[in-house]
Amino acid sequence: MNDAFHTDDLIQAPATPRGRSAVAIIRTSGEGCIEALSQVFSRPQVLMSSEGHRVHLGWLQSKEGERIDEVLVTVFRGPASYTGEDSVEISCHGGPTVVDRVLALFRSVGFRDAGPGEFTFRAFRNGKMDLTKAEAVREIIDSRTDRARALAISRLAGSVSKVVDQAKAVVVHQSAVASLALDYPDDEAEHVSFNLQALQETRNSLETLAKTWKTGRLYKEGLTVVLAGPANAGKSSLFNLFLKEERSIVTERPGTTRDWLEAWLNLDGMPLRLVDTAGLREGSEDPIEQEGIRRTRDVMKSADFVIAVADGCAGASEAKRLEQEELAQLDDASRLIRVWNKADTAVTAPQGWIPVSALTGDGFTQLEQAIRLQALDGGLPPEGDAAVIDSARQKSLLDRAVAAIDRFLEAEAQQIPADLLAEDLRDALDALGELTGAVSRTDVLNKLFGEFCVGK
Amino acid sequence: MNDAFHTDDLIQAPATPRGRSAVAIIRTSGEGCIEALSQVFSRPQVLMSSEGHRVHLGWLQSKEGERIDEVLVTVFRGPASYTGEDSVEISCHGGPTVVDRVLALFRSVGFRDAGPGEFTFRAFRNGKMDLTKAEAVREIIDSRTDRARALAISRLAGSVSKVVDQAKAVVVHQSAVASLALDYPDDEAEHVSFNLQALQETRNSLETLAKTWKTGRLYKEGLTVVLAGPANAGKSSLFNLFLKEERSIVTERPGTTRDWLEAWLNLDGMPLRLVDTAGLREGSEDPIEQEGIRRTRDVMKSADFVIAVADGCAGASEAKRLEQEELAQLDDASRLIRVWNKADTAVTAPQGWIPVSALTGDGFTQLEQAIRLQALDGGLPPEGDAAVIDSARQKSLLDRAVAAIDRFLEAEAQQIPADLLAEDLRDALDALGELTGAVSRTDVLNKLFGEFCVGK
Repeated sequence: MNDAFHTDDLIQAPATPRGRSAVAIIRTSGEGCIEALSQVFSRPQVLMSSEGHRVHLGWLQSKEGERIDEVLVTVFRGPASYTGEDSVEISCHGGPTVVDRVLALFRSVGFRDAGPGEFTFRAFRNGKMDLTKAEAVREIIDSRTDRARALAISRLAGSVSKVVDQAKAVVVHQSAVASLALDYPDDEAEHVSFNLQALQETRNSLETLAKTWKTGRLYKEGLTVVLAGPANAGKSSLFNLFLKEERSIVTERPGTTRDWLEAWLNLDGMPLRLVDTAGLREGSEDPIEQEGIRRTRDVMKSADFVIAVADGCAGASEAKRLEQEELAQLDDASRLIRVWNKADTAVTAPQGWIPVSALTGDGFTQLEQAIRLQALDGGLPPEGDAAVIDSARQKSLLDRAVAAIDRFLEAEAQQIPADLLAEDLRDALDALGELTGAVSRTDVLNKLFGEFCVGK
Repeated sequence: MNDAFHTDDLIQAPATPRGRSAVAIIRTSGEGCIEALSQVFSRPQVLMSSEGHRVHLGWLQSKEGERIDEVLVTVFRGPASYTGEDSVEISCHGGPTVVDRVLALFRSVGFRDAGPGEFTFRAFRNGKMDLTKAEAVREIIDSRTDRARALAISRLAGSVSKVVDQAKAVVVHQSAVASLALDYPDDEAEHVSFNLQALQETRNSLETLAKTWKTGRLYKEGLTVVLAGPANAGKSSLFNLFLKEERSIVTERPGTTRDWLEAWLNLDGMPLRLVDTAGLREGSEDPIEQEGIRRTRDVMKSADFVIAVADGCAGASEAKRLEQEELAQLDDASRLIRVWNKADTAVTAPQGWIPVSALTGDGFTQLEQAIRLQALDGGLPPEGDAAVIDSARQKSLLDRAVAAIDRFLEAEAQQIPADLLAEDLRDALDALGELTGAVSRTDVLNKLFGEFCVGK
């Protein structure tokens, strides 16, 4: 997104990935786009006089009459379109040469290539969707698991907008009360009565929404779990057990590096990056090996959780040794999950260790449950239609609104004059306005729409 | 394609490549598909009662009411659809998780995943297109240059069908004449009069079409050109000059191998694979180097053309040495193009050598022209709307039809009885029928549609 977005140009972009496929979609938008396209469509009158939501078969052809491709064109008449303005979608054959030729053809009748997110920006600009829904569009496309998709769909359907809009209504009303107070002399201030309970409830609902950010990010970004422990503890068998039990979600990425093996799994809708490190061999003199150890320590440091794998057959003393020698190095014990492997033949697991047999699969469900519980802080996974945010932008604006209402409530309790109180409510309103885009700043919009793919 | 194709199942497939994108298209077809989809669409009545070529916005939702995605559905009523039967295209958000979830949803209401080419097979089966057009659909998608696309578009528009249909009409008529002859006693055979001129012209037009196969393949498959010559002749500079002058068409493939460097270029619409070999160092003892030389010889052997690059500054004796020592090894001198490099400072080029300066670019146009002329056997590149085939299947059937008509003409000249003559015409008709698919064999169909991508 850039300044060129604030124009009414005719814009075009491929809306489907490049490659060999049955069809490719080229999206166009802008007032006059139907007329422009009719110059290169074999049935110009049909196109020009078409109602919205109609599909027409015909040939794209150059002004010189060269046939480019046989296509389906779908006409949308604004405001009943994605962007809110006249818009045409062209479904052509799916080869890259076809798409390139069609885009060149459209340039010849006045279209320019759209930037990333420019169609959605127009939808926002034309009042078709607020910013939380615009962000949801990108989040749907980027979702890596079905639950992440469901949460983003819920945002598109308005779950977040709804909470914010309700909050706005309450704050607007209380702002009006504050304005009213300004009209009275100080000694008649008792005439002004804020609905403190409504504000408190609003504040709480915004705080609850802000808190969902941790969960939202979890389902969006996923979490990294590292297997660590001595070489003979069975880390690789446990790694393979995970691959067998869970659906691998990014099959193209399970690669071996010099230093570790990793795979993306799907744990109840959470994208889970599982890393099997080489055993840490302290005291090696080999510089390459030292570098490997350093990198392994780095990945452990940045992991969300470390699964410490002990060889259960080595007995309780092994657990003690691990705790003292290796696990003690972890800065944050809450990131640790202890697995007592080879539970099928091992001695009983010590307190705090989860008995698992990578060989038979026994105990795997308990391990999975432990990861899930720690990831969700003991909570339940969100329902598909829950209001859950995964945007840092939304989180910080919600925090700002909550803080402003808190300031108001505190000041009000101290009987601060209404004109000062009004300022806190205005700040809360600004934050909520920015959240949906009612108030918007160019740099924020640049960043937000810049993360879209072209054609959306 | 497989036997399951010969069913009336409800079929579905993604019609766009997998990946992050603005939209993804899922295509469905089969009688009853509109009713099936209305079970999982938020506006079932709208969908059920929709006319064809209409687009509707709504939500896909599970039977339990879970919202899956907000989509556009386009309804096609048979026979006015790609497949010729009722068909619905769904435009959903372009993320892989969305597509997977939607396909799963549709499976739950009776759709099965389509095989490669199954939609086009249905179009063929339902009389929407003949086999030459079906093949053109795949050829458009696979085209690597704009000219290849234009030639395939011309086939889709019917350039090949037209020649074949006209030929069929003539042969059918003459077959009828032959049948008539069978009704007369031999001594009244003079009543039977074939239109020999029409048959001769038909035969010629089919032969002309068959001969375009070489050109068609050229634009489809492209040609391999290898730069060869001594290390100091400037092969690499010439390679870089090609890269600078021509548009590179497959940018992801110009890679270095141990043994050579290659890049795909676009020479007037011909995909051209240019290979810069290492100099051939005869007599090396190093087994790895020997293997490299062997591979270089292999790529030279399989090349369409070899550009022999001489160092013009080395003088005329160098040309003689090259001719005698290295070029003499080429089995086929017609594959050779001789370049006299460093023409800016070199002595005048000997007869048969093209003077080029890789440094200044002088002479490059002449070299380009030489490659084009040799590739096209001295002919001109085909016009965009020419009837040019690139299918081996079509080529062999055209050859068969021409041979059968030739047999007829020869036999007729020898006054062979009409019942024997009729057999040759029947064979010609069979070949032409197979060409368009009026006569079809399962194994042929299997092969033809098996080369399509899924969703087409």
